[in-house]
Amino acid sequence: MIWRMMAALLLSLGVSLGVGPLIIRQLRKLHFGTVIYELGPAHQQKQGTPVMGGLMIALGLLLSQVLLHPFPWRGGWDLGLGLLGVSFLSMAVGFADDWIKAVKKRHEGLTPWQKIAGQVIVAAGFACWCYLHPEIGSRITVPFLHREWELGIWYLPVMTLVVIFYVNSTNLQDGLDGLLGTITVVSSSAWTMVILIGVFLLGWSRDGMTPAGIFSLSLAGACVGYLRFNRYPAKVFMGDTGSMLIGGATVGLAMVTRMPLLLIMVGLCPILSSVSVILQRYYFKATRKFGKDHQGKRLFRMSPIHHHFEKLGYSETQIVSMYAGITTVASIIAVLSLLK
Amino acid sequence: MIWRMMAALLLSLGVSLGVGPLIIRQLRKLHFGTVIYELGPAHQQKQGTPVMGGLMIALGLLLSQVLLHPFPWRGGWDLGLGLLGVSFLSMAVGFADDWIKAVKKRHEGLTPWQKIAGQVIVAAGFACWCYLHPEIGSRITVPFLHREWELGIWYLPVMTLVVIFYVNSTNLQDGLDGLLGTITVVSSSAWTMVILIGVFLLGWSRDGMTPAGIFSLSLAGACVGYLRFNRYPAKVFMGDTGSMLIGGATVGLAMVTRMPLLLIMVGLCPILSSVSVILQRYYFKATRKFGKDHQGKRLFRMSPIHHHFEKLGYSETQIVSMYAGITTVASIIAVLSLLK
Repeated sequence: MIWRMMAALLLSLGVSLGVGPLIIRQLRKLHFGTVIYELGPAHQQKQGTPVMGGLMIALGLLLSQVLLHPFPWRGGWDLGLGLLGVSFLSMAVGFADDWIKAVKKRHEGLTPWQKIAGQVIVAAGFACWCYLHPEIGSRITVPFLHREWELGIWYLPVMTLVVIFYVNSTNLQDGLDGLLGTITVVSSSAWTMVILIGVFLLGWSRDGMTPAGIFSLSLAGACVGYLRFNRYPAKVFMGDTGSMLIGGATVGLAMVTRMPLLLIMVGLCPILSSVSVILQRYYFKATRKFGKDHQGKRLFRMSPIHHHFEKLGYSETQIVSMYAGITTVASIIAVLSLLK
Repeated sequence: MIWRMMAALLLSLGVSLGVGPLIIRQLRKLHFGTVIYELGPAHQQKQGTPVMGGLMIALGLLLSQVLLHPFPWRGGWDLGLGLLGVSFLSMAVGFADDWIKAVKKRHEGLTPWQKIAGQVIVAAGFACWCYLHPEIGSRITVPFLHREWELGIWYLPVMTLVVIFYVNSTNLQDGLDGLLGTITVVSSSAWTMVILIGVFLLGWSRDGMTPAGIFSLSLAGACVGYLRFNRYPAKVFMGDTGSMLIGGATVGLAMVTRMPLLLIMVGLCPILSSVSVILQRYYFKATRKFGKDHQGKRLFRMSPIHHHFEKLGYSETQIVSMYAGITTVASIIAVLSLLK
């Protein structure tokens, strides 16, 4: 298990470093550049940066699983299969979105309804798979308390919502050069530690968890390689392709380890990004409806909240460093919360 | 143990965030600004940035140990005492250096001989302490092989050199905004995992290791807080005060866990910085002596190697991100190397 995990880390790092330049050149050739949203902060110089860089992460995840998976595959309940399933199907929704944007050259890709319909299908399907899985089921671990919580049939609707919410959160989080990639290196390292604690201390099936360990470290390695091209100033963006892939992969790791509650810590930054968008919208609506002069007011200068920090004068790299620090501290506490 | 470690992380984070502005203001008032070395890359705008920001990290380490240590102290063999000893005494050498520079306003602080004499005393003293310690002794763990290596009396000279080499390596590494701080967040998280693996899987004394766990996480937390002020563009530098403190703290963790060999991975970047300086010097001397035209040639545009990357056109934040990625990958492999 350990050797396979190390190999996955290095393999996916090598893959994304190696194919990165090829993918970027190919995307440029196809004119798959970003169309920058007119209302955003002054990011006009990013116009034309190729998107869909997430494909290099996808390739790392796939190759690691294909080459390093401890054959024979354990059939339909194989965790590697489930993780690849939820992440690649989430990616497919984002990819369709990016593809349409790239071809039509306008900011809107899929219609909101198409997007949400795709996400609901993926999320509900994965929640069912986990629910029926003999080693996952409907019990989730409560951090700090060292006990489990039986959700019963409620697992299905709740986890469907969790998947949809988290995939959209990482999608919102991906707004600055290197931001989501850096956070994902930290969070997937944390999931790796969770898997190791599970196997070595909590008695989880070692063979069963090996594909999950390979998956989490190949995600970390692929993101380190991806950052080579995406750190400020970015040569490529991951696009919805990449952010939804990462969202699906992360929430998948949380669910196969039966630790979706740990997402609150390990995925704190993406979740706060979503929350900031929701707060912004409702505050605006509420002040317009109930405020003295019926003028909508804004809680943040701009949402998601990383753009608020930008408007306050922080540079992109400062915000990335801050988010990485927060994710590191929260992830360490998450990992420690499983021990006693 | 776990609660104390979480508390140490948050306490030292809070301390460095809280006292940071006070320390910076105080250092400014005392005119303890950097004097930028004339031959360095174009960093002239950094002239006057206060140094000795490492004091905020020191305060976090000290307070965590004082407030969270599981009393009663275990006398002279307490790991908390040893770790504070090696890190604060290393810091004292750097502090003397910074102090003289600040007062004399020139680049040279202590003479090289004063500096090395101070370091030898600290290093030899700590090596003796470890050698005589009932739970450390002269056996070190060999990663990957899951066995131990008895150094016998050779432990003393070898470890003295390791401490001196590593403390000077972190000192050289501290050359760009946020560089050493970021690396230290990653590496001290890795040492925390090593300690947890030791306690939970390798049967180390839980009570004995608790101060080391507190120490490693308070180092991580303090550095996250410190980066708030040191990330590009830096408002404060840690100075030799900070870099030697971090060097002593890190090599201390490596030695009390009997894993100095893991430093090769977890401390890869500082070590490569030292190696690049040594290579540069010997290559220059060798080409001057044996080269065709007896002109000294340079292997790197500038050493330590992070300045070489700067000269190649990478920005400070890109180099920090690259070093953080390398340290993360190497640290994950280091942690995995202890498992089987």
